[in-house]
Amino acid sequence: MQELIVIKIGGNIIDDDPALQSFLITLAQLQQNGKQKFILIHGGGKLATKMATAMGVEQQMIDGRRITDAETLKIVTMVYAGFINKNIVAQLQANGSNAIGFTGADGNLIQAHKREHPTIDYGFVGDIDTVNNEAIENLLTQFDILVIAPITHNGKGQLLNTNADTIAQTIATSLVNNNIVTLIYSFEKEGVLLDINKEDSVIPVLNKSYYTTIKSQGAIFAGMLPKLDNAFNAIDKGVKQVIIGKAEKLSQLITGEVGTSIVYE
Amino acid sequence: MQELIVIKIGGNIIDDDPALQSFLITLAQLQQNGKQKFILIHGGGKLATKMATAMGVEQQMIDGRRITDAETLKIVTMVYAGFINKNIVAQLQANGSNAIGFTGADGNLIQAHKREHPTIDYGFVGDIDTVNNEAIENLLTQFDILVIAPITHNGKGQLLNTNADTIAQTIATSLVNNNIVTLIYSFEKEGVLLDINKEDSVIPVLNKSYYTTIKSQGAIFAGMLPKLDNAFNAIDKGVKQVIIGKAEKLSQLITGEVGTSIVYE
Repeated sequence: MQELIVIKIGGNIIDDDPALQSFLITLAQLQQNGKQKFILIHGGGKLATKMATAMGVEQQMIDGRRITDAETLKIVTMVYAGFINKNIVAQLQANGSNAIGFTGADGNLIQAHKREHPTIDYGFVGDIDTVNNEAIENLLTQFDILVIAPITHNGKGQLLNTNADTIAQTIATSLVNNNIVTLIYSFEKEGVLLDINKEDSVIPVLNKSYYTTIKSQGAIFAGMLPKLDNAFNAIDKGVKQVIIGKAEKLSQLITGEVGTSIVYE
Repeated sequence: MQELIVIKIGGNIIDDDPALQSFLITLAQLQQNGKQKFILIHGGGKLATKMATAMGVEQQMIDGRRITDAETLKIVTMVYAGFINKNIVAQLQANGSNAIGFTGADGNLIQAHKREHPTIDYGFVGDIDTVNNEAIENLLTQFDILVIAPITHNGKGQLLNTNADTIAQTIATSLVNNNIVTLIYSFEKEGVLLDINKEDSVIPVLNKSYYTTIKSQGAIFAGMLPKLDNAFNAIDKGVKQVIIGKAEKLSQLITGEVGTSIVYE
């Protein structure tokens, strides 16, 4: 079985040029020194919000999720699939890795439907239906690193803005049959923190029962909950390891030396 | 040998939603009814200029070519590689063709260098050095239509804005060894016109000596000259046929029933 590492890189790193450069150099080195295949899913950062402001498009957020009207979809498609995706690909190429960038519309890699919700209209936000494993696995044999922007489509011509954490989890779990999959959620924090203000309060190992306990105590930062739900979901569905931690420590995250390891029990 | 059709679709069609839809429906039908493989290279249209205006970025043009400063490069990358490329891919998918979209940076498909010119600094404009035939041919076995945005890279992390007509010609000529290649330049006109104001003045067949004659008479619209130079270059280098004409008549262009056929002599 092929070792496959699926990495989500969070928005705050995307906005921080030196941190992003350093992350991409490390990723290219790891790829060239090892036998693993890599899929990198990137978030959007603040550039989309800046662009929207510059163009006079008002942004609405509900529960930390962007409401994607037609103009906002246009902007996120430009920023995520255009600017961020292609700059990451060009940087990885410059560092010797043969990277290639996509959205979920390309090759019908990720098909989704417009989110249905009883009270909130999220606009052009997609919830994932299918992942095209065969196409992804063929592309992995041809290229070193697949770089995926968080845009999907509905198969009927509509692009959809889709949560990057969820894309990472869904792709990781889709590929467990033919690969030994590690899922890394990398961002600006050292890991899952017991106290959001203390970088040294990293929980090294987090199992379900402990997660349930500290969640009920309100100890975990609300923004972390969807990521952790995705993480446990991945473990439930056969992903070998899930690690959450600081993007700049990618090498040690992959070995489990730093960050928070999510375990079944 | 595989039949391969390389199509450039011009900017004015990109801006005209019904014309673009109709073109993409025809392209998908042709792909599904035939055995040919397709590569579609798209231009940018006026959206990049509109975006630049909205964001207060001033645009400079010399000889019909955009001067690409850092801000303009950011905008064209967003518009060409993000918005236009992904919408075309999603529309082709909706019409049943398994399309996939790229820039030249992806998979190192097209490497270029920043244009050197004794007096004009074109900014981040790329002139092509190499085309990665092997990667393109592998992708053609896996997907129905490759959709390429006119952005390349220099292999050192720099994205470059690159003329879409030239990309189409370079890709077409690069693939002649293993493919029977047709190159189509499609746009809003019926073909190469003897009188730019008369749509019925199409030159049905244009060879080099006739081209030299009418060029010296100033009969050909200046904006058409680089396209024709590219067209003759393609014929010189082994492309089987080059046809220039109206995007909405794609089916008849491919068979040579309409438009201008470029021939060696």
